[in-house]
Amino acid sequence: MSSSWRVLERREVFSIPRRISIAIETVELPDGRRVDDYMQIDIADFVLIVAETGGNRIVCLRLYRHGARRVGIELPAGHIDDSEHPLDAARRELLEETGYESADWEPLGTFFQSTNHRIGLGQVFRARNATKVQEPCSGDLEDAHVELLTRDELIAAMRTNEIVSAPCLAALALARI
Amino acid sequence: MSSSWRVLERREVFSIPRRISIAIETVELPDGRRVDDYMQIDIADFVLIVAETGGNRIVCLRLYRHGARRVGIELPAGHIDDSEHPLDAARRELLEETGYESADWEPLGTFFQSTNHRIGLGQVFRARNATKVQEPCSGDLEDAHVELLTRDELIAAMRTNEIVSAPCLAALALARI
Repeated sequence: MSSSWRVLERREVFSIPRRISIAIETVELPDGRRVDDYMQIDIADFVLIVAETGGNRIVCLRLYRHGARRVGIELPAGHIDDSEHPLDAARRELLEETGYESADWEPLGTFFQSTNHRIGLGQVFRARNATKVQEPCSGDLEDAHVELLTRDELIAAMRTNEIVSAPCLAALALARI
Repeated sequence: MSSSWRVLERREVFSIPRRISIAIETVELPDGRRVDDYMQIDIADFVLIVAETGGNRIVCLRLYRHGARRVGIELPAGHIDDSEHPLDAARRELLEETGYESADWEPLGTFFQSTNHRIGLGQVFRARNATKVQEPCSGDLEDAHVELLTRDELIAAMRTNEIVSAPCLAALALARI
């Protein structure tokens, strides 16, 4: 079976502090070959939340996303603050972005935005019996609208390509939606 | 409903030609606010292939991925070459990485690695009745092993976090695996 590559050298070639760092690594492959320009990209790690209401609806957001240049449907999500526990970040982001909270949380798994380049690590949580306790107050730039979608409506949104975020689709796969 | 942001200015702040470009945009939001440091990241667009054999197995790869620093299960995938049609890229990558081909292709949708930052656009294709016609010859750095997994085995691999690529999980969501 293929085994790990050894990092012989790593040099940062670009950074915007607290936002992105790009490094070029010299790596040694298991067969002894060396590659001197393997690129790794680091951005902040993040959480995504699949929050289900007691009425079997999933708490979603409809909003313009500038990276995609379009309006789409997404799950609540956000960056993990420094020294914040991922579950605490998930609770915070769900409350800030949607006004919902839950007492029943389960980790569903993790993934990378790219397994070539790393980019960010995403951690997915399921929240059951989520209930609305306040109005959203995310402070995000986007003007987001909370929508409670059934599983069938979410599947239809995947089919019509209204969900264009790979991390959101990945979270839905882990949640078996 | 939230509408598009206007890009007032865009300046490239870093690039490695043909690999990555980072730009900072000045954008105007629908409410008139201006943001002068919105980051966009461009890397090559890519295809992912959910190839099913006549025996209802999905053609997968088990390989070390340096971005994740671990061995995992992935779908055949790769960058779209300059001026290559995405479906041609999918046929080429499936053949090179697994030795399989198919006469029955269907586009399943597209996504971005990040809807904040863009990063790369992924295009997903389903290939039915895939058959092995040659040995793999990808030329990739990774020592990949082809594995034919049933749908249940793929779902088990998601549950045990053996699939850690957001684009692969996203492709499985679009394929309704």
